Amino acid sequence: MNIGFIGLGKMGRGIAENLLKAGHALVVYNRTRARAESLGTKGASIAVTPAECCKGDAVFTMLADDAAVEAVAWGESGIVASLPPGAVHISLSTISVTLSTRLAEAHASAGSEYVAAPVFGRPEAAAGAKLFVVAAGPAAFLSRCQPLFDAIGQRTYVTGEKPATANVVKLAGNFMLGAAVESLGEAFALVRKHGIAPAQFLELITSSIFPAPVYKSYGLQIAEEKYQPAGFQLPLGLKDIRLAMAAAEAVNVPLPLASLVRDQMIAALARGYHESDWSVIGKIAAEDAGL
Amino acid sequence: MNIGFIGLGKMGRGIAENLLKAGHALVVYNRTRARAESLGTKGASIAVTPAECCKGDAVFTMLADDAAVEAVAWGESGIVASLPPGAVHISLSTISVTLSTRLAEAHASAGSEYVAAPVFGRPEAAAGAKLFVVAAGPAAFLSRCQPLFDAIGQRTYVTGEKPATANVVKLAGNFMLGAAVESLGEAFALVRKHGIAPAQFLELITSSIFPAPVYKSYGLQIAEEKYQPAGFQLPLGLKDIRLAMAAAEAVNVPLPLASLVRDQMIAALARGYHESDWSVIGKIAAEDAGL
Amino acid sequence: MNIGFIGLGKMGRGIAENLLKAGHALVVYNRTRARAESLGTKGASIAVTPAECCKGDAVFTMLADDAAVEAVAWGESGIVASLPPGAVHISLSTISVTLSTRLAEAHASAGSEYVAAPVFGRPEAAAGAKLFVVAAGPAAFLSRCQPLFDAIGQRTYVTGEKPATANVVKLAGNFMLGAAVESLGEAFALVRKHGIAPAQFLELITSSIFPAPVYKSYGLQIAEEKYQPAGFQLPLGLKDIRLAMAAAEAVNVPLPLASLVRDQMIAALARGYHESDWSVIGKIAAEDAGL
Amino acid sequence: MNIGFIGLGKMGRGIAENLLKAGHALVVYNRTRARAESLGTKGASIAVTPAECCKGDAVFTMLADDAAVEAVAWGESGIVASLPPGAVHISLSTISVTLSTRLAEAHASAGSEYVAAPVFGRPEAAAGAKLFVVAAGPAAFLSRCQPLFDAIGQRTYVTGEKPATANVVKLAGNFMLGAAVESLGEAFALVRKHGIAPAQFLELITSSIFPAPVYKSYGLQIAEEKYQPAGFQLPLGLKDIRLAMAAAEAVNVPLPLASLVRDQMIAALARGYHESDWSVIGKIAAEDAGL
Repeated sequence: MNIGFIGLGKMGRGIAENLLKAGHALVVYNRTRARAESLGTKGASIAVTPAECCKGDAVFTMLADDAAVEAVAWGESGIVASLPPGAVHISLSTISVTLSTRLAEAHASAGSEYVAAPVFGRPEAAAGAKLFVVAAGPAAFLSRCQPLFDAIGQRTYVTGEKPATANVVKLAGNFMLGAAVESLGEAFALVRKHGIAPAQFLELITSSIFPAPVYKSYGLQIAEEKYQPAGFQLPLGLKDIRLAMAAAEAVNVPLPLASLVRDQMIAALARGYHESDWSVIGKIAAEDAGL
Repeated sequence: MNIGFIGLGKMGRGIAENLLKAGHALVVYNRTRARAESLGTKGASIAVTPAECCKGDAVFTMLADDAAVEAVAWGESGIVASLPPGAVHISLSTISVTLSTRLAEAHASAGSEYVAAPVFGRPEAAAGAKLFVVAAGPAAFLSRCQPLFDAIGQRTYVTGEKPATANVVKLAGNFMLGAAVESLGEAFALVRKHGIAPAQFLELITSSIFPAPVYKSYGLQIAEEKYQPAGFQLPLGLKDIRLAMAAAEAVNVPLPLASLVRDQMIAALARGYHESDWSVIGKIAAEDAGL
Repeated sequence: MNIGFIGLGKMGRGIAENLLKAGHALVVYNRTRARAESLGTKGASIAVTPAECCKGDAVFTMLADDAAVEAVAWGESGIVASLPPGAVHISLSTISVTLSTRLAEAHASAGSEYVAAPVFGRPEAAAGAKLFVVAAGPAAFLSRCQPLFDAIGQRTYVTGEKPATANVVKLAGNFMLGAAVESLGEAFALVRKHGIAPAQFLELITSSIFPAPVYKSYGLQIAEEKYQPAGFQLPLGLKDIRLAMAAAEAVNVPLPLASLVRDQMIAALARGYHESDWSVIGKIAAEDAGL
Repeated sequence: MNIGFIGLGKMGRGIAENLLKAGHALVVYNRTRARAESLGTKGASIAVTPAECCKGDAVFTMLADDAAVEAVAWGESGIVASLPPGAVHISLSTISVTLSTRLAEAHASAGSEYVAAPVFGRPEAAAGAKLFVVAAGPAAFLSRCQPLFDAIGQRTYVTGEKPATANVVKLAGNFMLGAAVESLGEAFALVRKHGIAPAQFLELITSSIFPAPVYKSYGLQIAEEKYQPAGFQLPLGLKDIRLAMAAAEAVNVPLPLASLVRDQMIAALARGYHESDWSVIGKIAAEDAGL
């Protein structure tokens, strides 16, 4: 297919490369053009504007937040206005339920298609085409996208016809990850102050009750107190928790555990940990315990 | 070995049977004698007092809480007074750090041995000898106990020479389980109110980011809103969170996530869910969301 | 002075009447015109558009939220575009720090003046000219407004030259009110379940350690479980807590107690208490205790 | 009357002096005898054992916690065993509901009387006979005690016949104080980071919406960041919150705001603020905001 790809950050780059490898023709755009160059050496065309990415069958967006997506979506030369009828906008970004709904409506009005397809996985998974794709949209749109999802992920989950459902699930999942990190942080603070080695506790819980990769990877960061370089930076993590809370508030669902994670993240920002991985809330738990 | 076993509840019964299967001679005691009968038909002797369980090489205790352990440990005919020099008291119960430390001191004074060996696993795991044993005590004591641990569990973790470290780790683990359940409960409330089927969300997260049995089993209870029969009853879960908080407070560690779980559990008791599994806090999350 | 007044809800009506009583000429506007009629009988001119309120020396806005203020502030016939140079926009509404800052900038660009002057007090205090006015803006602007503040309140507090500081203080105050209500709700649940009469407890604490009118009035609502009619409706209260949290997040301040109040309010919405006073979180505390 | 008085700490000393001033004969006891000497110079007899305080019409206890009260209450020479029939034990200490109930039962069995009479007020109020006395017990007992309450406080509140109700109310009140302090701490962090002077904010809120002495005094401590010398030391404050939570848990009442205050207090202990006033949780709020 002829595909546009907008957003070549840590995640986007790996995904775009996998689309190239799968044989698709790619036109890529990144606000900071330098980041697009390496894709150029691998066969992608480099666009100067987002609109240039909207001339094929599909355009992906993989951007940091709502504002970044809005910046390329709206306006005369934005995606919504530029995408030809029948072409599809595949939104991989973790954005708000509200924006996803608005994009779906706008594309419908414009005669183009919209699919929400946020992904689970860190940059390594993006590079290795091991992402979990959570996709939602009209069935016909999704089936056309499936080969693309297959090129970038290990499995696709369809949550329904309504695009925003995929965003809700993605946000619920990220909230659960944040919760798992918080529980790790508190548990490590507890065992450390009782003289138990973090590495030992980590090995124990991740080989018994919590044999999940996320417990292993985040647990290792907390056990080793090594929060940099960040796989997923704190401000992005906070953004996701905030979006989960907004999605919940919209339907009157209190999420007290999300509130707690949010407060720990804000405390982490207040202490200057902007550059750290979002697992740095484990450091907050440690500091609150006097460690 | 000649072994005494005190406490034949959901967990204790399965463990005791596995010790029998491994060829050990067992004298069992349960406050409600009827529960001991079935072990009798499998070859165990039935004791009328805890002291009768203290004439061999080792005595296990697997009881509900500190009070139950104290009731058999102290006094003239209690375990501490009755166990012969060189014999070992293996405490499987999830008890407080404080009591475990006091028991260690008391046995040391009395010339007998004490090993803390709380276990992870639900009744099925106990019956299947698939428990994870967290053991702590002097190395010499532990090595003598190892064949017994092998008979009841799939793996033994040694946390150190100080018995209470095993209790800390067990409580930290149970706190993390409670936290995982709370995060499941809130996430399900969120997705359900956005019209996403619980079963679908469960399959998605447990086959992607949370492929751990505990997420699957607790997630299923919450997705199906089936909190009975209880594998681990709410009041016992609350007890464990309370013990984790006490262990944390003793070394000045705040556990805000444990506080949250505790409050949800108390709300669940207030609403009459005493008989339910501790995962019933998922129901509290649902009710707080108007579901 | 010649004054415009936009927003004649529970609070605005009383304030506008007091300005009339003080001898000012008033042009009033309300989206629902019927609400303006009674002011007409008292001597105010009734405007058909917000712009008609912007022809005098000052225009007040007293509206429910950011969106309502934005609806009358921006655009060709909005306040910012309509207000003559040298005239002042006095913003009484409890709005976000962000919007207040944007309004200050917009008026400065347009050559008009902007003063933030949110008020503490319930509708009775507005009617009785007993409000506490929290005002911020350049000193010269404020001194011109002082006679107006004197007409509507019992005291004016100046927080600084920067308008948004008044909004921060107002939000901080409302957060503290929400916190006081939550503490009342939980305390009443506790004493009630121990068989102590709510009225007795209320009299005791408000004549001893908490002799403040807000403890008395909110305490009475909770003690009598009488949450309607609402002096300050739940969704407005939630809005204020949300704004306080946003103002705090903007400068990296975690407010865990605000998070708690927010979650209780969302639970109250989920249970259908939209029409109740925001003190209905006391009912949530009671329900969570099985009352 | 002939009165015994046990416990001459910051609070007890002032109370005992007021009993002396009112013309009662006093026998005083303090574990650290030196603290009793000054009362001796004012006319009190100094006892060497608690039992010596139990020979008159009444004995007061004003001690730090349950353990301290239990140390003088039980045993052969304890208060319960020593007090003559018809004499009354007036328990001023902030103790657990459980212990208060046990004391009531023990005195009833022994033929003596028991009244729970915890007090609100800091050491200055104790010295000035300005305490608020919360009293509970059989009416006949209370009326005999009234002259004594009049000598030490400005007002007596009777909560019922069951002594523990007074303890519940005292704990509920201390919880509310802790909540007020937490809300002050968070509000100050918010306004400070927006450049508003703490003293200005303090004056504003305590002369408008929160005109209560406790907001003024605690607010001043937080505004000036002056947490020593402690009027009420952090570990004692934490004890009271813990007792409130225990009293609540006993009747299945979740107190999420108490949980929050408790966690902040534990964090304060972890950071080494044992010697500070319990209002030091305001410092925790500031530190969590990067101040």
